[in-house]
Amino acid sequence: MAELYITIGRQFGSGGREIGKKVAEALGIPYYDKELLAVAAKESGLSHEFLQSYDEKPTNSFLYSLVMGQHHLTPGMPGNTVEQMAAKAQREAVLSVAEKGSCVIVGRCADYILRDKPGLVRVFVSADWDARVQRVCRRDGVTEKEAVEKIRKMDKTRASYYNFHTDRKWDSAENYDLCVSSSFHGPDRAVEVILDFCKA
Amino acid sequence: MAELYITIGRQFGSGGREIGKKVAEALGIPYYDKELLAVAAKESGLSHEFLQSYDEKPTNSFLYSLVMGQHHLTPGMPGNTVEQMAAKAQREAVLSVAEKGSCVIVGRCADYILRDKPGLVRVFVSADWDARVQRVCRRDGVTEKEAVEKIRKMDKTRASYYNFHTDRKWDSAENYDLCVSSSFHGPDRAVEVILDFCKA
Repeated sequence: MAELYITIGRQFGSGGREIGKKVAEALGIPYYDKELLAVAAKESGLSHEFLQSYDEKPTNSFLYSLVMGQHHLTPGMPGNTVEQMAAKAQREAVLSVAEKGSCVIVGRCADYILRDKPGLVRVFVSADWDARVQRVCRRDGVTEKEAVEKIRKMDKTRASYYNFHTDRKWDSAENYDLCVSSSFHGPDRAVEVILDFCKA
Repeated sequence: MAELYITIGRQFGSGGREIGKKVAEALGIPYYDKELLAVAAKESGLSHEFLQSYDEKPTNSFLYSLVMGQHHLTPGMPGNTVEQMAAKAQREAVLSVAEKGSCVIVGRCADYILRDKPGLVRVFVSADWDARVQRVCRRDGVTEKEAVEKIRKMDKTRASYYNFHTDRKWDSAENYDLCVSSSFHGPDRAVEVILDFCKA
């Protein structure tokens, strides 16, 4: 079988992580989400804590990076600021795990980083607002009001990180080969939809 | 079988129209694209030419409509300006064809207009930039340069119309239950992906 690189962008609370895991299990290939941090730490020599603090998060000195010029996750990107160091280490971790063979990678602009790789399937998982609120309440043990705040903040954070490090818009359908709402038929059916799409 | 209302938003040159038609044929249900204009003309008493000139197009007096207030396609929307009259007639045509039973509707904010209807499946069809340019060249007999201009203009026009008449963003994955790239596996496989999704 040819190599398969499934990248999964996901709205916060959509269950994208769980769906990505199940897709990887069904295909018997590795799955990377937070796991990428360990790879990035090992390969860059930067600490896990340092990388975690910049994981998919834009920070105040983004403005500085902007002024400094090139900030897309491309070969030859600069690594002068702390954000750039972290982003560069993440980019190299994505390339490194893909180098080993088929895998599922959640978030971290992997769809953009691997954009020229044959076998790439770019997936985005969304869900209805209410379903996301319920999921975050249940999963994180928070009130509805807290869940709403968390979802807004996390989506904004992920979008900022993605839009900054790519020349694309995070939630734009045109960036993906397949977008599926996990609340339409439920997460398990979303897994099947993704598997069917990758098979064909 | 329960009623099924499949709405298809589409990037210009993605083949969304052709895909919508094949989905409708496979399910044996009516298909509405430009056909909605005839329904709108018949039911509103407005001329077909008048409606066509405002079909999914924002115009200069949008600013006026904005100032005048409410412009979403909801019950009780005003119908004072020519754009409002045209949009209102389109909205009523969408509701009227859905009233008759299962159907496929391409564009015209049908996903928003029918948002509370059980059996609604909101689909968006995209395609890679190059595939869209090729398709438009072939279909419309234009040069690559002309195709690029046409695609940019038409996408912008559709997005403006949609964003203005709804509280949503046209190309945002979160508005749809399923988004599929027609250039990934080709249009025929996109039809199958949509049919499978609607079946489940």
